[in-house]
Amino acid sequence: MSEKDNIPYKTYLTEEEIPKAWYNIRAEMKTAHRPILHPGTHKPVTEDDLRPVFCDELVRQELNDKDSYIEIPAPVLDFYRMYRPSPLIRARFLERVLQTPARIYYKYEGGNTSGSHKLNSAIAQAYYAKTQGLKGVTTETGAGQWGAALSMACGYFDLDCRVYMVRISAEQKPYRKIIMETYGANVTPSPSNTTNIGRKMLKENPNATGSLGCAISEAVEVAVSTDGYRYTLGSVLNQVLIHQSVIGLEAKAALAKYGEYPDILIGCAGGGSNLGGLMAPFMADKLAGKRSPRFIAVEPASCPSMTRGKFAYDFCDTGMLTPLAKMYTLGASFIPSSNHAGGLRYHGMSPILSQLYHDGYLDEARAVEQTDVFEAAKLFAKSEGLLPAPESAHAIRVAVDEALKCKESGEEKTILFGLTGTGYFDLTAYAQHNDGVMEDYIPTDEDLARGFAGLPDVSDVE
Amino acid sequence: MSEKDNIPYKTYLTEEEIPKAWYNIRAEMKTAHRPILHPGTHKPVTEDDLRPVFCDELVRQELNDKDSYIEIPAPVLDFYRMYRPSPLIRARFLERVLQTPARIYYKYEGGNTSGSHKLNSAIAQAYYAKTQGLKGVTTETGAGQWGAALSMACGYFDLDCRVYMVRISAEQKPYRKIIMETYGANVTPSPSNTTNIGRKMLKENPNATGSLGCAISEAVEVAVSTDGYRYTLGSVLNQVLIHQSVIGLEAKAALAKYGEYPDILIGCAGGGSNLGGLMAPFMADKLAGKRSPRFIAVEPASCPSMTRGKFAYDFCDTGMLTPLAKMYTLGASFIPSSNHAGGLRYHGMSPILSQLYHDGYLDEARAVEQTDVFEAAKLFAKSEGLLPAPESAHAIRVAVDEALKCKESGEEKTILFGLTGTGYFDLTAYAQHNDGVMEDYIPTDEDLARGFAGLPDVSDVE
Repeated sequence: MSEKDNIPYKTYLTEEEIPKAWYNIRAEMKTAHRPILHPGTHKPVTEDDLRPVFCDELVRQELNDKDSYIEIPAPVLDFYRMYRPSPLIRARFLERVLQTPARIYYKYEGGNTSGSHKLNSAIAQAYYAKTQGLKGVTTETGAGQWGAALSMACGYFDLDCRVYMVRISAEQKPYRKIIMETYGANVTPSPSNTTNIGRKMLKENPNATGSLGCAISEAVEVAVSTDGYRYTLGSVLNQVLIHQSVIGLEAKAALAKYGEYPDILIGCAGGGSNLGGLMAPFMADKLAGKRSPRFIAVEPASCPSMTRGKFAYDFCDTGMLTPLAKMYTLGASFIPSSNHAGGLRYHGMSPILSQLYHDGYLDEARAVEQTDVFEAAKLFAKSEGLLPAPESAHAIRVAVDEALKCKESGEEKTILFGLTGTGYFDLTAYAQHNDGVMEDYIPTDEDLARGFAGLPDVSDVE
Repeated sequence: MSEKDNIPYKTYLTEEEIPKAWYNIRAEMKTAHRPILHPGTHKPVTEDDLRPVFCDELVRQELNDKDSYIEIPAPVLDFYRMYRPSPLIRARFLERVLQTPARIYYKYEGGNTSGSHKLNSAIAQAYYAKTQGLKGVTTETGAGQWGAALSMACGYFDLDCRVYMVRISAEQKPYRKIIMETYGANVTPSPSNTTNIGRKMLKENPNATGSLGCAISEAVEVAVSTDGYRYTLGSVLNQVLIHQSVIGLEAKAALAKYGEYPDILIGCAGGGSNLGGLMAPFMADKLAGKRSPRFIAVEPASCPSMTRGKFAYDFCDTGMLTPLAKMYTLGASFIPSSNHAGGLRYHGMSPILSQLYHDGYLDEARAVEQTDVFEAAKLFAKSEGLLPAPESAHAIRVAVDEALKCKESGEEKTILFGLTGTGYFDLTAYAQHNDGVMEDYIPTDEDLARGFAGLPDVSDVE
């Protein structure tokens, strides 16, 4: 019997313990990430450059590398109390099944109707749009989690919400579209005839099934060309990582109640919003030399931006409307195999995470194949009673692997991972796995070379 | 400012505060419900009669009218800690939108992957089957919540799980079927060729879309004719109400922390499992003369067993394989309009609730139309951030109506309702409402007369 045996299965902080400020890891970084560049001039963007795209306060947050803490506005904090603090769960059932001496914890962000952590940033972005007196916001969505979150947030603040949804996703995931519409959003399959870039893509290929990069271009075009609108994004950006720090701050406070601190911290990484948010306060400890947790970013083998991408300046979208960011990227023209089940299909990676990985503070990126991911997802669903989103299951896969290593070595490591969301709208992927017809897809070097060939020719900027 | 203003938005009891025993309201009833009758002899059933159908311990619980408390077995309690205590939520956002002086609380049971309160009884039934050394269990499911819950429970205890799913539901809700299969269940659309009653139904109508009553018949037939199998049911039965009392016990304990007690308690009622469980400990107070909360059962106008049914002996299934129960019923042959969106489509009502209603302790049954229900559901989804199951939304409708009455009268009533589950698999119904094409359906007196004509000719038994 260890003293850790009395730790409850689920730990909820009190509502008073919800953080009052977000954490901005950028203020602590040893090496700043390279500046975001204007797509036309290739010069570092100014606040003025970004204001037509993002709300004023979000522009300030995007460029803020000074303030470690940014106060959470009271109405956002009030909304957080609707579904936060999210539980920190000790995976006792999974530990038993694995017979591991490791203690596994996960921070579960899927308990709200949007089904993922995306709501943490959506409500902040909607709030700033509302206080700026805007009429509405635009965005893109792939799997639909971000779009659903933004729809809920806009519904709450009575803002118009225009979502460009990757056409193939809109067709394959009609339920997500209905959720967005139920919350009052206007959902347009992308590419569409409502934008120049959309019409261009459709002219090239009338049957285009769409991509995240193209949907971003459409949403940005509408935002900058429509009075009273701004663009919003659910990952990659610094502002999103700031908002998502609420995950890590809560997780750290909950673990501290039991004298726990992660030896290993694991997050799935598509654009980086979840991992960036979960690890922020722990990364601060590492940067300050206080602690040395091992950070692992998990990405799909089908879209391996960190493990096989280049650390280079690239566009965030296909239409090359967005600023350029220095990041790990497969090239904005890289389109992952459509047989990949979940999200995490983005060609790039958060500039902050990219820099931390480049500098070795983010210790490891690991690519996993989807059949292995769904095997872990089902093991987790059966033992812990929660059906994970395919994205989250990437983190589960590595958490299970690390726990099994502990079983071999006998080490009682503390493992923390992010369970970003639920898989209720990914059941056709589960059915594929149940029926034994799911396939893996690993791009060849030639596939990657084609993506890299499209990288813009930008000399680095200090 | 009232002292009640400091009540948190969400209250979680500690895991230590999860009830250690279920509550058996039957032991407190002033008038016992009429005995269950053997379908062949029309004599009160004995334990021996029921043992081929249900696990031995569940037979004892079904017939137990003596013990107020029944200990929850340790492995079931352990499983409960996976997702319980469920939160008691103060509906502050809804209160604000309604501008009501009422304090509205709801007990939210949809946070687990089965998506509803059904798991509370499923895990108990699976546990007793496992400890009896059975190979597996059978059941039927309509909307799929019960089937999903039983699949999770059987997956956990490594029991075979055979689910007969109403054919039209299996076709319209493929995701629920996939969830069941992901947890290892075997799902057969009903009517099927695997049973005598199924073959008979298909012979009469090869295109039969099925009904709950028919699926029950198939599941019972397989259970009683297969070695090592028993039948399980997600509602109506006394044993289910016993297990679901955990909802009410937790709700009462959480409210007591703030000196709160419901003036009005509201639950949707299909077979009665949720309302029966939520109200059990409060009903005990009323039966003992200590308190006088007002109880309201909410049913769909399309399937009005309490508001327009007869209090009579009837079969629980279409195939007339099950024992006869004295209950409010529309007749086992009554099939509600297929245009009704949610569950709550059962022809009868829990014998316990039926007796309490007959005796006036359950104060009121109210029938609501589905367009009104979905209007309330969407108001709730937008304000409280949770997309309710259509079943649960019946209770929301009445809670909203009662809160609006308080606004008129200025009364600060305390309202408690059961939010039994989430609507993630009911989105086509939401889409109907969003698109303005949802219709109401109220059976005519002639429709009801046809159902009543099929009632068995059983003289009452004391």
